[in-house]
Amino acid sequence: MEYQHGGDIYTNSVNLDYSANINPYGLPKRVGEAICHAVEDSSRYPDSQSSALRKKLSGFHGVSEEAIVCGNGAADLIFQVVSAVRPEEALLITPSFLEYEQALHTVSCNITYYELKKETGFLLNVQELISWMEESRIQFGMIFLCNPNNPTGFAVLKEDMEVLLDYCKSKQIFCVMDECFNEFLDEPQRYSVLESMNQREFHSVFLLKAFTKIYAMAGIRLGYGICYDRNLLDRIHSLRQPWSVSSLAQAAGEAALSETEYVKNTRKLISSEREFLKSQLSSLGFYVYNSMANYIFFQDTREEAIGEDKLLYHQMLSNKVLIRSCGNYRGLDGTYYRICVKQRKENEEFLSILKTILEKGE
Amino acid sequence: MEYQHGGDIYTNSVNLDYSANINPYGLPKRVGEAICHAVEDSSRYPDSQSSALRKKLSGFHGVSEEAIVCGNGAADLIFQVVSAVRPEEALLITPSFLEYEQALHTVSCNITYYELKKETGFLLNVQELISWMEESRIQFGMIFLCNPNNPTGFAVLKEDMEVLLDYCKSKQIFCVMDECFNEFLDEPQRYSVLESMNQREFHSVFLLKAFTKIYAMAGIRLGYGICYDRNLLDRIHSLRQPWSVSSLAQAAGEAALSETEYVKNTRKLISSEREFLKSQLSSLGFYVYNSMANYIFFQDTREEAIGEDKLLYHQMLSNKVLIRSCGNYRGLDGTYYRICVKQRKENEEFLSILKTILEKGE
Repeated sequence: MEYQHGGDIYTNSVNLDYSANINPYGLPKRVGEAICHAVEDSSRYPDSQSSALRKKLSGFHGVSEEAIVCGNGAADLIFQVVSAVRPEEALLITPSFLEYEQALHTVSCNITYYELKKETGFLLNVQELISWMEESRIQFGMIFLCNPNNPTGFAVLKEDMEVLLDYCKSKQIFCVMDECFNEFLDEPQRYSVLESMNQREFHSVFLLKAFTKIYAMAGIRLGYGICYDRNLLDRIHSLRQPWSVSSLAQAAGEAALSETEYVKNTRKLISSEREFLKSQLSSLGFYVYNSMANYIFFQDTREEAIGEDKLLYHQMLSNKVLIRSCGNYRGLDGTYYRICVKQRKENEEFLSILKTILEKGE
Repeated sequence: MEYQHGGDIYTNSVNLDYSANINPYGLPKRVGEAICHAVEDSSRYPDSQSSALRKKLSGFHGVSEEAIVCGNGAADLIFQVVSAVRPEEALLITPSFLEYEQALHTVSCNITYYELKKETGFLLNVQELISWMEESRIQFGMIFLCNPNNPTGFAVLKEDMEVLLDYCKSKQIFCVMDECFNEFLDEPQRYSVLESMNQREFHSVFLLKAFTKIYAMAGIRLGYGICYDRNLLDRIHSLRQPWSVSSLAQAAGEAALSETEYVKNTRKLISSEREFLKSQLSSLGFYVYNSMANYIFFQDTREEAIGEDKLLYHQMLSNKVLIRSCGNYRGLDGTYYRICVKQRKENEEFLSILKTILEKGE
């Protein structure tokens, strides 16, 4: 099974990893301390309910504990919610995160793709999507929405998402709303449907959140879902082992939720460095899309890149820099890339290597 | 979803937990240190292949790396192997570990139960099982074998298991051989089919192993499987997220495999304390089965216990001692219990509380 994601520093020799969208500030010190502290109790089975963590998340989001389920990373929950809903027909928007498709395959679901177009900047227009769904006459059981979208970085406003969720509610379509990168946006609350789910009684929505990215905990594995369909959460619990979330991850998550300054500083850093990187990449001649998240989506439009398979990827890798080729995303090809946003020092090093490659042509 | 296993110290007030079968020596010091060290790199995604750990396991067991798959605890792999094989008919031996049944339910598998009988001490006789399977005329797609069995603690000799695996091979029945407690036996190699799988070409066998129990890592989550069916392992990888094993667990596992003295000492301790506890429980009037593992299976045969639901469980719990009621195992009732084996000091404390209860009758 070929690895199809970013962050594969294990089979490559890499000094700078720009392929995984992780908070560049790294794991908060107190989270690391909490893990070492939790090691003392790690002979015991983890709390199968993640009770303490769910209680803390409940206060953090203002959501009842009963509506929260924790998982071994957000990716784990993608497989579980698919397995619990078992849709026969699903709608995926392309390009988007690859795991949705993989999860749907496990239940032999029929998948229809709604393609975001290059011509419209891969932006999602909700009204157009709804019209298209109407015209398709397919009775979808499930739709995946990724907001901000991965790899494009574009986020849809909450009000627009509500229109889509209203439509899905009327058609009994279960929505998985992946907001794993929401916290990196300049104004997260303008894009999240968290409050709408309760206020507007969107019960067939599974809101997916991750600690992985915003708290730089990718190696620890912790994600969670929020959903007001109690039966669905029961089904998820019946479909998995009781101890899917390690006690180390539970302790890490509890500690992470206190890191409000860290998150605030992250948002400031990402905002300025993203714009810095975008303008630099543009001035180097790349076609840069208007990402609002902690990663940047762009196309290598150099003549020599067209028709070549992942030219820039290979050029950067020979300089020990790993970037995410988007060639394996549906609707994209080997000229598209995604890079993450890091701190200024690394970003300058990255740009300097990139410039040398462009100048030398190799 | 009700919690049905041992180790639930989270919803009970417990001083002594005798319900979870964990190495009483606790997490090896160097494993804890390895975890704290791994925290430094935990911002990165884990190695999706667990390459370093699989390499070390390969040397440890003398098995090719390609035949090893790691999981988020052995329980995780139970669900995955079931999902990859998708049997229509499965055979479960009762009483045995509850997760097998739960996993089979997720693929809507039809389950037939082969009951171990009280009259024969819940011992598994392989020849009788084979005759029964023949007579049943059911084309089983999968069978779960737990050796030593949980909760009874009885282990079947390798030679006998080979007869069963030969039979299954001839009938194309996929076997999951759960040896998660093998390392606690006095002579583990007399009971493990690890070498037979290669020597006798048992390719449709998935050997399940755990770090959880022998290295006291229950909170960390790490298990692995050994299987010579390359297609099956590929299917497992395609059915799950790439990062199911945390980088902390991978580091812990690598460190654990060097703990040979610790395992040797554990075996000595378990052997003598198991026999001590067994004889003490017998002399207190309980009917004690002849467990060979790190846990003891017994029946509360007191007159007042018959017909009562989990009398001893409740009596012990009011003294803040948690024991595993086996009332929710198929074929057992609320007079059966399983306790783990700990160190002498705890075992004496446990026995002293037990004696007081028996004397006072409450």
